[in-house]
Amino acid sequence: MKTERLVKLQVQSNRLQSELATLAAFSAIPAPAVERIVYSHQDMQARAWLKKLCASAGLVVREDAVGNTFARWQGTNPALPAIATGSHIDAIPHSGRYDGTVGVMGGLEAIRALQESGFQPTRSIELILFTSEEPTRFGIGCLGSRLMSGSLTASADTTLRDPSDATLHDIRHAAGFAGDLASTRLAPDHYAGFVELHIEQGPLLERRGVPVGVVTAIAAPASVRIAIEGEGGHAGAILMPTRHDAFLAAAEISLALEAAAKSTGSIDSVATTGICEVFPGLINSVPSRARLEADVRDIDGSRRDRMLAVLEKACADVAQRRGVTVATKVVNRDDPATCDAGLVSTISAVCEAQGIACDRMVSRAYHDSLFMSRICPTAMIFIPCRNGVSHTPDEYSSPEAIATGVLVLAETLARHAGVLSSADGPYTPGTGTSLSR
Amino acid sequence: MKTERLVKLQVQSNRLQSELATLAAFSAIPAPAVERIVYSHQDMQARAWLKKLCASAGLVVREDAVGNTFARWQGTNPALPAIATGSHIDAIPHSGRYDGTVGVMGGLEAIRALQESGFQPTRSIELILFTSEEPTRFGIGCLGSRLMSGSLTASADTTLRDPSDATLHDIRHAAGFAGDLASTRLAPDHYAGFVELHIEQGPLLERRGVPVGVVTAIAAPASVRIAIEGEGGHAGAILMPTRHDAFLAAAEISLALEAAAKSTGSIDSVATTGICEVFPGLINSVPSRARLEADVRDIDGSRRDRMLAVLEKACADVAQRRGVTVATKVVNRDDPATCDAGLVSTISAVCEAQGIACDRMVSRAYHDSLFMSRICPTAMIFIPCRNGVSHTPDEYSSPEAIATGVLVLAETLARHAGVLSSADGPYTPGTGTSLSR
Repeated sequence: MKTERLVKLQVQSNRLQSELATLAAFSAIPAPAVERIVYSHQDMQARAWLKKLCASAGLVVREDAVGNTFARWQGTNPALPAIATGSHIDAIPHSGRYDGTVGVMGGLEAIRALQESGFQPTRSIELILFTSEEPTRFGIGCLGSRLMSGSLTASADTTLRDPSDATLHDIRHAAGFAGDLASTRLAPDHYAGFVELHIEQGPLLERRGVPVGVVTAIAAPASVRIAIEGEGGHAGAILMPTRHDAFLAAAEISLALEAAAKSTGSIDSVATTGICEVFPGLINSVPSRARLEADVRDIDGSRRDRMLAVLEKACADVAQRRGVTVATKVVNRDDPATCDAGLVSTISAVCEAQGIACDRMVSRAYHDSLFMSRICPTAMIFIPCRNGVSHTPDEYSSPEAIATGVLVLAETLARHAGVLSSADGPYTPGTGTSLSR
Repeated sequence: MKTERLVKLQVQSNRLQSELATLAAFSAIPAPAVERIVYSHQDMQARAWLKKLCASAGLVVREDAVGNTFARWQGTNPALPAIATGSHIDAIPHSGRYDGTVGVMGGLEAIRALQESGFQPTRSIELILFTSEEPTRFGIGCLGSRLMSGSLTASADTTLRDPSDATLHDIRHAAGFAGDLASTRLAPDHYAGFVELHIEQGPLLERRGVPVGVVTAIAAPASVRIAIEGEGGHAGAILMPTRHDAFLAAAEISLALEAAAKSTGSIDSVATTGICEVFPGLINSVPSRARLEADVRDIDGSRRDRMLAVLEKACADVAQRRGVTVATKVVNRDDPATCDAGLVSTISAVCEAQGIACDRMVSRAYHDSLFMSRICPTAMIFIPCRNGVSHTPDEYSSPEAIATGVLVLAETLARHAGVLSSADGPYTPGTGTSLSR
């Protein structure tokens, strides 16, 4: 049976690569860099193109009030909760073409490979395109999956604003996504499970020469905004002892956060100050204000919170020593997620059956899976990416690596959705595994 | 004779204050903040208004190829080199209404006060409006006075570019200033002397309760651009030990520069990192690039250069330790200026004659006087400003403080320009003083 399956499941890598290239071209900036901000012209164009592809594959497409898009391959028993896969297609400025997109286009390819193998699912299989996994526009990541899982309520419609100060409500309506935001929430039994295929965005798989990572936990990210108010003045005239330089305070705080992440004793602790804005930002003015945004993550929520505490203390110390005011605001502090043991076992078993090496690992990056895990059994399949880099134009995952991931995904979906072919007999959803929730 | 002069020279403070208010309203941003970038719509409107005022006062107005504006009150012996005063009206973003403007409008008021007293100059007296004292648009300060003094050559026409990448040549022509940039240069004997009235932009006069500062030296500023190239990547996935964070490198460099300025042993050493830009500037991306601009000043040129050397070393150390590349470029490194002993004596004598207390002091801020000193005897008159602040919207100098400065300026110009009134007999230019160059 295993051998038959290998023969029958043909991932059409050329088709997939060509579609990834097409998707990458929906970008606000020239290749190889990609920028596709949620609800932008490029995002809307890409969505329209993707919906056409899904329709061509016979999938039934539904969109919710925030633009989360669901493309369903109807199972023979549509009353059963579907098994889902998917990811995001929004891309931060100056990023690459694989983050998120491999999970969306690869998810579609997995479905097509199953269709072309003659497989008929008992459970429906759904491909999900999540809206705004990236925090670029609204300052908060995983907008779509937070709403689906109830981690964000409908009040986000007016509280979330983009840099132009427009509300989520107005922006989504302008993009054609109407309706009550509360309607985006899914019932806890809506899905039988969710599996996300994603590039690792880290160096481990490549370094070890392992083609598949089975994610067992997703790190707990927190976002902190830090506003520093000092005292400006003429760069030539304000003497050093009387200065209250907001930027130098920001510099010390950022270095203190780095030190905090380096001293937890765990490699899983990371902290980044990705945004530093200095006001007025002129060579001959002592900075009067500075603004930082920091990202603090760990797979251990309490260790993450200890880093946040060190950051808070550093802010207070710097404020006192430099005579500036420092206001911190934790805008986001999510709990880490443990992946579903049953799905993790299935993915591992699929790899074994296919003769594909795999390692269990943790995800340090944010994913929609973090929020899907709150409403259904969830797991992730990682594939290697070159030098572990992501969110840069030289992000790269080879066609072979992607095809392998798609194969494992397809097989995993099949094991939870029904029968591979009539000759193979039925798969009981979750055979050989248990969906723990 | 001293008493008569005091009676006759009437500074019309109300007129001057009203004009300063009018000038402040030529601003790109709402009051009390001022922004008047060189050649902007607001700058051009302000120039037109000022030229009308000068014409009303009977002054003959000339503009050079870069927009330096000269308003001449013709003396009875026009063949003699004129004595000049003036300053700038361009204002950095979010600045105040007194920096530069007090020297321009106060210079005009000094001329009018002399006219209204019945004074007739032997030498001509010229009011100069210098183009772009602020480095905001072209990245280099004192554009007009550098060109006049030959400290900048005509090649600046194509090498200087604004943030939109337009050349000085194209921008000045669009503003209506045509002609060869080389024609802006003045002969060394063009002026008999130059005296600039300016707010102190520091706290010393206010703290001491002294209404006039007689500037004996102007600090030597240097500007350094620092470009840091690290390695970007996903904030969640790149582990701390493998990072090459460009922003954290920038933070360390900025703090090292601060330490260098604080450890020279002299209060006259100041260093400021006023610009820090982080790329890509996203909360979930490790900064791959950062750009700093730093301003380093001292009245002692070699001490200033030692700070620059410490900065260079810090850049090299940080580059090595963090595995980033750091490129530094000293875009500007001016020599300090010593004010003309004769003019300094005249200003002191004028203060004494008027019963006005004065202190000799140094200027730590950049001024057009720094460059004028290279082509003619130069000095500056400082007046107090509240809390020593400048380049912020709450910059303030009282009407009384300004009027006092104008009175001292007018008297100083008169002593070098000729006779106060026919009844007083002639002043030999430089009486009681010697113009040392």
